[in-house]
Amino acid sequence: MKRGIFISFEGSEGCGKSTQIARLESRLRDVGIAVLRTREPGGTAVGERIRDLLQHAPEGAGMTSEAELLLFAASRAQLVREVIQPALDAGTWVIADRFLDSTTVYQGIGRGLGLEAVGAINAFAVGERLPDATFLLDMDAAVGHARAVASRGDAPDRMEDQPLAFFETVRQGYLDLAKAHPQRIHVIDASDGIERIEQRIWLQCRRQFDEFFR
Amino acid sequence: MKRGIFISFEGSEGCGKSTQIARLESRLRDVGIAVLRTREPGGTAVGERIRDLLQHAPEGAGMTSEAELLLFAASRAQLVREVIQPALDAGTWVIADRFLDSTTVYQGIGRGLGLEAVGAINAFAVGERLPDATFLLDMDAAVGHARAVASRGDAPDRMEDQPLAFFETVRQGYLDLAKAHPQRIHVIDASDGIERIEQRIWLQCRRQFDEFFR
Repeated sequence: MKRGIFISFEGSEGCGKSTQIARLESRLRDVGIAVLRTREPGGTAVGERIRDLLQHAPEGAGMTSEAELLLFAASRAQLVREVIQPALDAGTWVIADRFLDSTTVYQGIGRGLGLEAVGAINAFAVGERLPDATFLLDMDAAVGHARAVASRGDAPDRMEDQPLAFFETVRQGYLDLAKAHPQRIHVIDASDGIERIEQRIWLQCRRQFDEFFR
Repeated sequence: MKRGIFISFEGSEGCGKSTQIARLESRLRDVGIAVLRTREPGGTAVGERIRDLLQHAPEGAGMTSEAELLLFAASRAQLVREVIQPALDAGTWVIADRFLDSTTVYQGIGRGLGLEAVGAINAFAVGERLPDATFLLDMDAAVGHARAVASRGDAPDRMEDQPLAFFETVRQGYLDLAKAHPQRIHVIDASDGIERIEQRIWLQCRRQFDEFFR
């Protein structure tokens, strides 16, 4: 049996990740490929408790950046070993809504914790389990910020409650990361139409993992 | 104003840490020194949520060693910045019931996660804030194990629910660490009488931090 393929989606809030993940998942199912979708933080019992603490619990209000990074990493360490690796071993494809690049960009660059420390912690958390392909939905920071503000409603979570400058830093951080990992990270223009983006992602998957589509 | 002194207590379950911490705290108060006591994991609102997840929550049952280590580190990162450093800056002494050496020994050695990775994560979590002195209450592994088993009652937590061999590994790990950091870590024979141990710790504090006792 073939090992499954591991794909992550990255990008700022409001970039359209959720829509594209749903489209890819549906296309894969249509050709008979089993798919599992994960989200970060969360995706396991331990991880969902961590997600609650990071995003909604009143205790999270005074959280330091260092604790935040370590909580994200704890959630991911659990997710990789409990969910992602077993699924891949069973031949299932895994689509992750955010993975280690989010931590590099949001905590390492956005919060200024430093790429070396974040890299060491990321490596410890995920072990050998890097995505086979990462789709970065790149969009103008001002547009992303406006969309995130519009969508947050009455209960903003901590990561979305950030000024425009933070979105600009995040965008540039992602683009730099894509330049450093051109084989793994595919930059997709998120201002394109939904169908065009979907098509581009699908073609990349078919080309890169063509043994699954014969 | 003098900066406060930071002291940590280490040792396996059942070594008598709590008793000695209470004795030292009381002696320091008697000579007019302000003291703050911390415990790990926990000691902050974020940390107490993490403590609950590590020790008692049903979600913790399938927790990986990697996630466990990162949760301990997250709790500590919060504690150092929110509680310990501000207290020391205000001239208060801080007595920590476990600090980074516990992680090195329990997770790095006991769980086999490796000293290099654990060292990097510890360093990120605590920053520059190492204890000025650490008292290691060293005791025979079989005695410690028996005491821990006897005291755990009806609700064993995850760390106490370990075989004797784990206690032996932990003991040796602590002793090796003390050998590597002879200036900071003071090994105390925990099989001595409570008063003798108390006296030894007190004399070490008076000698090492004599400017506070003149």
